[in-house]
Amino acid sequence: MEKIGIIGSGTWGTAIAVLLRNNGHEVTLWSAIPAEIEEMAKTRTHKNLPGVTLPEGIIYTADLEEAMKDKNLLVMAVPSVFVRSTAQKMKPFCKEGQLIVDVAKGIEENTLDTMTQIIKEELPMAETAVLSGPSHAEEVSRGLPTLCVAGSRKKNVAEYVQSTFISPVFRVYTSPDVLGIETGAALKNVVALAAGIADGLGYGDNAKAALITRGMAEIARLGIAMGGKYQTYTGLSGIGDLIVTCASMHSRNRRAGILIGKGYTMEEAMKEVQMVVEGVYSAKAARALAKKYNVSMPIVEEVNQVLFEGKPAKEAVADLMLRDKRIEHSDLPWE
Amino acid sequence: MEKIGIIGSGTWGTAIAVLLRNNGHEVTLWSAIPAEIEEMAKTRTHKNLPGVTLPEGIIYTADLEEAMKDKNLLVMAVPSVFVRSTAQKMKPFCKEGQLIVDVAKGIEENTLDTMTQIIKEELPMAETAVLSGPSHAEEVSRGLPTLCVAGSRKKNVAEYVQSTFISPVFRVYTSPDVLGIETGAALKNVVALAAGIADGLGYGDNAKAALITRGMAEIARLGIAMGGKYQTYTGLSGIGDLIVTCASMHSRNRRAGILIGKGYTMEEAMKEVQMVVEGVYSAKAARALAKKYNVSMPIVEEVNQVLFEGKPAKEAVADLMLRDKRIEHSDLPWE
Repeated sequence: MEKIGIIGSGTWGTAIAVLLRNNGHEVTLWSAIPAEIEEMAKTRTHKNLPGVTLPEGIIYTADLEEAMKDKNLLVMAVPSVFVRSTAQKMKPFCKEGQLIVDVAKGIEENTLDTMTQIIKEELPMAETAVLSGPSHAEEVSRGLPTLCVAGSRKKNVAEYVQSTFISPVFRVYTSPDVLGIETGAALKNVVALAAGIADGLGYGDNAKAALITRGMAEIARLGIAMGGKYQTYTGLSGIGDLIVTCASMHSRNRRAGILIGKGYTMEEAMKEVQMVVEGVYSAKAARALAKKYNVSMPIVEEVNQVLFEGKPAKEAVADLMLRDKRIEHSDLPWE
Repeated sequence: MEKIGIIGSGTWGTAIAVLLRNNGHEVTLWSAIPAEIEEMAKTRTHKNLPGVTLPEGIIYTADLEEAMKDKNLLVMAVPSVFVRSTAQKMKPFCKEGQLIVDVAKGIEENTLDTMTQIIKEELPMAETAVLSGPSHAEEVSRGLPTLCVAGSRKKNVAEYVQSTFISPVFRVYTSPDVLGIETGAALKNVVALAAGIADGLGYGDNAKAALITRGMAEIARLGIAMGGKYQTYTGLSGIGDLIVTCASMHSRNRRAGILIGKGYTMEEAMKEVQMVVEGVYSAKAARALAKKYNVSMPIVEEVNQVLFEGKPAKEAVADLMLRDKRIEHSDLPWE
């Protein structure tokens, strides 16, 4: 039995608390908002996970020190935009060698840092790892079969995370390619927006599957330039996570895209969805990274022009269709 | 303007006729069944493409010689089980160097041959190429945006196919990896069956995305052992086509899988779907190929046990979830 602190009680943090508690660990779930965590402790439910009763024995707290003290493992589960400020608050309570498994996904807009890069900057005494893959919280909290990948540069750390999370309904693979996992997870939301736009335009399954495939191909091109490995983008945290995002109406990115495809402006779509649409920020970050690493990302470029420069969505798709004739993978030899 | 003969007037052959005629080519569409092709000529519709009016000027014939005479390009669009017998019938009319673009997908059960291997055996005087990708005929015939890949070992042949098929709504990439394209396209149906089974069991989007991802990973392992290239399985004819198949109720494989997941036997499911379920044959071929090339294919193995050995679907999923702890991509280095 491990002692685990989960930093963030959104749907994903809570679903992980359910999983890890059911695995027999001692689980402390933290929220920055005392009223929210007291309500969860009292009702043993989460307002955005309807029908799920949280297992007995989870410890609920709004005290960061309590959440972090004497823990074998911490899970960073706050929204990506709060990872830096949360890490700063964690500093006084963070012991040497503390393992922090990040499950937040994103690229910081001004620094272009990944989440573990932020954590390492703010908490240099910590050991970091990531957990990612196609994993809607709604399904994990209900015990539906899910596969993820645990990433760490160190094999023993990845295997420890694997052993802690694995269960008969939650299969965990290991990987050394932390950067590949993080970049795939962060940038997929741009493609999910594009897929939503295609849906909103009334295009079919062919166009969407092509966008997913070619979208991941350009994310991989960028990620490899940054140091990620090709295989990772073809795996659970890359194409797997992208598939689940593009298939589901749970995805705010996809929903916002559908509205934009129907003719809403980006601002109108954001207002209608009434939540943070991660892909809008990721689109900017992806464009900046493409420029920095000098990588061609036609889908990212068109999404940016639609979001920020008023280009009609239909015109953007037409421009993608009418690019020069290309070879699918330019590194394969001809006869 | 090219002269093109399309051998097979099913939904895919007919959708290609629409595309190529709209591209300005002279198109002759052949069916083995005179009544069927006469009906199409009279009504300018296809019974399984509702709402689509075929463009003016397509030539309809049940005469194989007429369909093949003086053509720059032939499209092999009969169901995969009829490719060998059709190629045999084509032999008397096949000129030296005749280009045949195969769009049928499958592995012949007893020989384990791909479609272009069959065509080359029966028509050694022909030049072959393939066209594949996420392309429901229903959508292509309606002019919805679609991306495919044209494969030939020879760059000039692939580029000729690209130039002939490409249009503002049909984008074509080229590739030299014919074997990778053909094996990905043929074996995806086994994974589509597995994805359907997961749907039928009531599992969610996480499980399905994981099955698609890991399913394509094992197809790639086999395909590489056979001589295909890794990149191709991550492309339009690999994961792209698999995504569209698993997303759609057009897919007979997926529909049969759903019934099996709900407890039907394979025979009952086949009877209910009332059509050939390609994945059932592909599952056998995939298992035989896995054995021949000594490749581990756990999803293919479990699908075979469910289809042919009466293993309950739920037990098969449980066995997949409880395998040994694994590394996602065993070729990546640790620190």
